[in-house]
Amino acid sequence: MKYADRVRRVVPSAIRDLLRHGADPRIISFGGGYPDPALFPMAELRAVYDELLAGNPLSLQYCPSDGLPELREHVAKRLAADGIDRGADDVLIIQGAQQGLDLAGKLVLNPGDTVVTENPTFLGALIAFNPFEPDYAPVRTDESGMDTDDLARVLAGSPRARLLYTVPEFQNPTGVTMSLERRRRLIELANEYDLLVVEDTPYRALRYDGEHLPTLKSLDTEGRVVHLGSFSKILAPGMRLGWAVADGDVLEKLGLLKLAADTQCSTLNMAAVSLYLDRYDIDAHIVTMRDAYRHKRDLMLGILDDAFPGTVRHTTPQGGLFTWLTFPSGFDTVAFMRDVALPEARVAYVPGTTFFPTEPEHNHARLNFSGLPDDRINDGLTRLAAHLR
Amino acid sequence: MKYADRVRRVVPSAIRDLLRHGADPRIISFGGGYPDPALFPMAELRAVYDELLAGNPLSLQYCPSDGLPELREHVAKRLAADGIDRGADDVLIIQGAQQGLDLAGKLVLNPGDTVVTENPTFLGALIAFNPFEPDYAPVRTDESGMDTDDLARVLAGSPRARLLYTVPEFQNPTGVTMSLERRRRLIELANEYDLLVVEDTPYRALRYDGEHLPTLKSLDTEGRVVHLGSFSKILAPGMRLGWAVADGDVLEKLGLLKLAADTQCSTLNMAAVSLYLDRYDIDAHIVTMRDAYRHKRDLMLGILDDAFPGTVRHTTPQGGLFTWLTFPSGFDTVAFMRDVALPEARVAYVPGTTFFPTEPEHNHARLNFSGLPDDRINDGLTRLAAHLR
Repeated sequence: MKYADRVRRVVPSAIRDLLRHGADPRIISFGGGYPDPALFPMAELRAVYDELLAGNPLSLQYCPSDGLPELREHVAKRLAADGIDRGADDVLIIQGAQQGLDLAGKLVLNPGDTVVTENPTFLGALIAFNPFEPDYAPVRTDESGMDTDDLARVLAGSPRARLLYTVPEFQNPTGVTMSLERRRRLIELANEYDLLVVEDTPYRALRYDGEHLPTLKSLDTEGRVVHLGSFSKILAPGMRLGWAVADGDVLEKLGLLKLAADTQCSTLNMAAVSLYLDRYDIDAHIVTMRDAYRHKRDLMLGILDDAFPGTVRHTTPQGGLFTWLTFPSGFDTVAFMRDVALPEARVAYVPGTTFFPTEPEHNHARLNFSGLPDDRINDGLTRLAAHLR
Repeated sequence: MKYADRVRRVVPSAIRDLLRHGADPRIISFGGGYPDPALFPMAELRAVYDELLAGNPLSLQYCPSDGLPELREHVAKRLAADGIDRGADDVLIIQGAQQGLDLAGKLVLNPGDTVVTENPTFLGALIAFNPFEPDYAPVRTDESGMDTDDLARVLAGSPRARLLYTVPEFQNPTGVTMSLERRRRLIELANEYDLLVVEDTPYRALRYDGEHLPTLKSLDTEGRVVHLGSFSKILAPGMRLGWAVADGDVLEKLGLLKLAADTQCSTLNMAAVSLYLDRYDIDAHIVTMRDAYRHKRDLMLGILDDAFPGTVRHTTPQGGLFTWLTFPSGFDTVAFMRDVALPEARVAYVPGTTFFPTEPEHNHARLNFSGLPDDRINDGLTRLAAHLR
């Protein structure tokens, strides 16, 4: 079979095999990016599905491809409260924020165009963009997010830069948050270099401390930002619902690409989330989640500080699901996982190499703190620390 | 904003505006491709969602991107009973069969490659393939489906033919079914010309009379057929669940493209369909649907025969959701809909032009018989007939 050229870039991740071991129940895995299922509002969702399925069968019929109007309305209201002044017509319901990455890549990338990202960046974004055969220009990233001085330098040397991808809050994999000053500067540079900015905010509502910052979309002066969000981390991932907000022609074209890709999201799930938002207080639910995850974050960072060798550094995320470890230069987290962490400590994490778009660094690991009970966090990190010392 | 080259081909259908009138309740619309919501098994689905949401929260968590294993197992068993001898590992769960079109196009089409289709063909397939910038080579199609003599001629003149798209049963828009002899010949030609065959079977289980024919996948000798199916027409479209069956490397790459596109389908909906298949007899449900749709088909064809001018021909579908009208040469179904059908008869249909990949014919219309109550079928066709005479 002859494949399209784009398929050259579609290959299984080497890390995937290693992470399969995470399914072994004897292994404590910090590898996922999963919310805690114990926090899903099961009773409330049970009630809304029951109400829908007891009623009008149209919740199981086709519906408009841009999404169920009442859910678009809910999303628009929540975004307006967050400083994004748009209406329901400016919201597209998508199959999780991940679909927004596919659609945005489809929208602007020709083979050989450049995608600018944080370094390191979200693996799912690389997987989504790869079929469009881009080059990547990673930008230095620190505790204040993407370094916009380095961004200016990178853009000056990237004549084919077309798309800038960023997770401004509690970034995946590092957990860091972009400062307000850098957000403003990023928008200036996007305007200057005619970029489409893809702002991915799956963790935005999960802030545990620090100051709530404006979205890039709220700072967007030329309609260049595609703002992506998701119900996966604030309600449940298993309904596969997210949103894209964009302006004018960009929005219209994303809608046409959504129609082409899969017709629409699940009518039933859209109706259920909309009814959930009618009937219940999601913000109160989010407060509960925040409290639970803040506790888990503090538990994890505490053990890292107390039990891990002083040479292992970690980020201090103000929200989200992850912290990022940096081991001494020369330490190889892939080899350590294969030779020690999995077979001896029976602990998994995601080695950092996989998150670097161009030149992998080998001395990092991503740890998730949201998906595990306290005792597993405790046991897993204690075992890992023992084998590191 | 500079868009990717592929976006040149992503444009709203002119027909879409015309069909918006179908939402006006005074208009009787034969334009949709919707199953009858009165036939959705609401009580059974209510029971399975309730059972799931009363139990383990993992039905709302992430799950493997290829699909929930128990649903893949169910689909594989149903396909084995239909002559496709594959296991659960050969099944990929997708966001309706429509997503299979996007993934198959992504897999093999470079810009300028040729997609071979029935003439006319499913509009959703053209919409899915267009972003990959193909040329189209339509093949003469009659009451026995795609004419394989014409296919041989088309392929001999299409050096860049890469993908053959077909709806072998009760085709959309014409309702015709490909004969067994042509199916066999199609596979020979696909082997000879190294094509990927995309077999789209959303209506396959909805056969009202005539002989059940083998799928192209069951006749596939070189692993060239991607078989697509869907729960949309046999259960409900609002869950957005379909499947792709393929072999070896094609299957693996489609799975990677699915992961890139949207991570996975809804865990909850997959769990619900799987539990529905555990608890209930879907084949008995399909018999009920068949009886209902056969009745609607007979009602529609009866009125077309009795009340329409003898110069208007129709196909006689043995299943599915549609019949296809051919008006005398020179009759323009777009103009008639705009000037007479909508404003005077208050009836909508889909003008045939939109289904032709290259050279539109203006004297056809697609009528759906599955989505309307009997009295609306009666009233709508009677009004249309009165204005045609």
